[in-house]
Amino acid sequence: MDLLLATGNKHKQVEFQAILNEHRILTPADIGAPFDCEETGSSFCENSLLKASILFTTTGRPVIADDSGLCVDSLNGAPGIHSARYGEKNDQSLSAQGKYTLLLHNLEGAANRKAAFVCSLVLYIDNYRYFIFQETCRGVITKAPQGTGGFGYDPVFFIPETGKTMAELSEEEKNRLSHRGKAGAALRAFLKAYGENLGVV
Amino acid sequence: MDLLLATGNKHKQVEFQAILNEHRILTPADIGAPFDCEETGSSFCENSLLKASILFTTTGRPVIADDSGLCVDSLNGAPGIHSARYGEKNDQSLSAQGKYTLLLHNLEGAANRKAAFVCSLVLYIDNYRYFIFQETCRGVITKAPQGTGGFGYDPVFFIPETGKTMAELSEEEKNRLSHRGKAGAALRAFLKAYGENLGVV
Repeated sequence: MDLLLATGNKHKQVEFQAILNEHRILTPADIGAPFDCEETGSSFCENSLLKASILFTTTGRPVIADDSGLCVDSLNGAPGIHSARYGEKNDQSLSAQGKYTLLLHNLEGAANRKAAFVCSLVLYIDNYRYFIFQETCRGVITKAPQGTGGFGYDPVFFIPETGKTMAELSEEEKNRLSHRGKAGAALRAFLKAYGENLGVV
Repeated sequence: MDLLLATGNKHKQVEFQAILNEHRILTPADIGAPFDCEETGSSFCENSLLKASILFTTTGRPVIADDSGLCVDSLNGAPGIHSARYGEKNDQSLSAQGKYTLLLHNLEGAANRKAAFVCSLVLYIDNYRYFIFQETCRGVITKAPQGTGGFGYDPVFFIPETGKTMAELSEEEKNRLSHRGKAGAALRAFLKAYGENLGVV
């Protein structure tokens, strides 16, 4: 199936294409459609729906959209939907390193360092008909960064069953274990099992 | 899998049990758990999530919850999430007949009588991890009620491919074609394809 991904981020297209490999993932740029979305939702789910509905309105095609972030128990789920803008002041955003350094600072002395990466992925068929797959990767925030792969908070997110941080995983391991990989796998399984009922090619 | 359905409505339990027949559908009453939810969301999806999260909080078990309604094109999607309370004044609700009569009145002279029954069904594993299946049944609002089956707006909701209103369908036809039947089928397909990844029995 051709799925239009509501993003301007080429890297995200490559990542979802690897996960949803029986389908063709297109971006607005690939079909010359405009796409711009202010993420004003109050949850990952609301933001992913918002992105999808905006792109559906301009194109009328089946859309997928995601919203992701890191939720830390001791910080009542922060940075959450603000993960990409954590520590931003006067529209000046921090680097990835600046963001995770701020997180480590805010967690100094915290006994509970449990956290979850969360990804909400929506398959949007029309304004009434959609399917949302919100998956997680559970882990623990380290006391110092480890590893050079990945991006964002990956170097400070330790996954106990692997003995590694997200930044130390191979691409294959990350696609299997990450919140985005799991949300993509859930969508993929759903498309295989229910796709023929969707009435779209 | 045992699935706890966030409802006090025995009829809904029977309906979902018929659709999700490999699973056991329990209600809060079956396990002696309290359940009360004010539907304050601004969409079907928000309301179904709200019901599920409340019941998850008190029980810690995997929950399913739904919210449904009728959306009429010419009325900008009304009655929508207010379908069950359409025409309610001073906490006095109308009978089902009162509600569809009001709807027919509000559509007098409307050329476009297209409508959709919508059902949002959520499978809630925990506060970060959930899956939403929002399905529709498309139809046309009749000029007068037809049929005696079903409930709510069923007698005025005509489904062109069947040549019948929702109130004239057999139970088997309704479970196959209705918004709730289709949302249930989507969840069922998903559980079959992805259930073993959910880590719950």
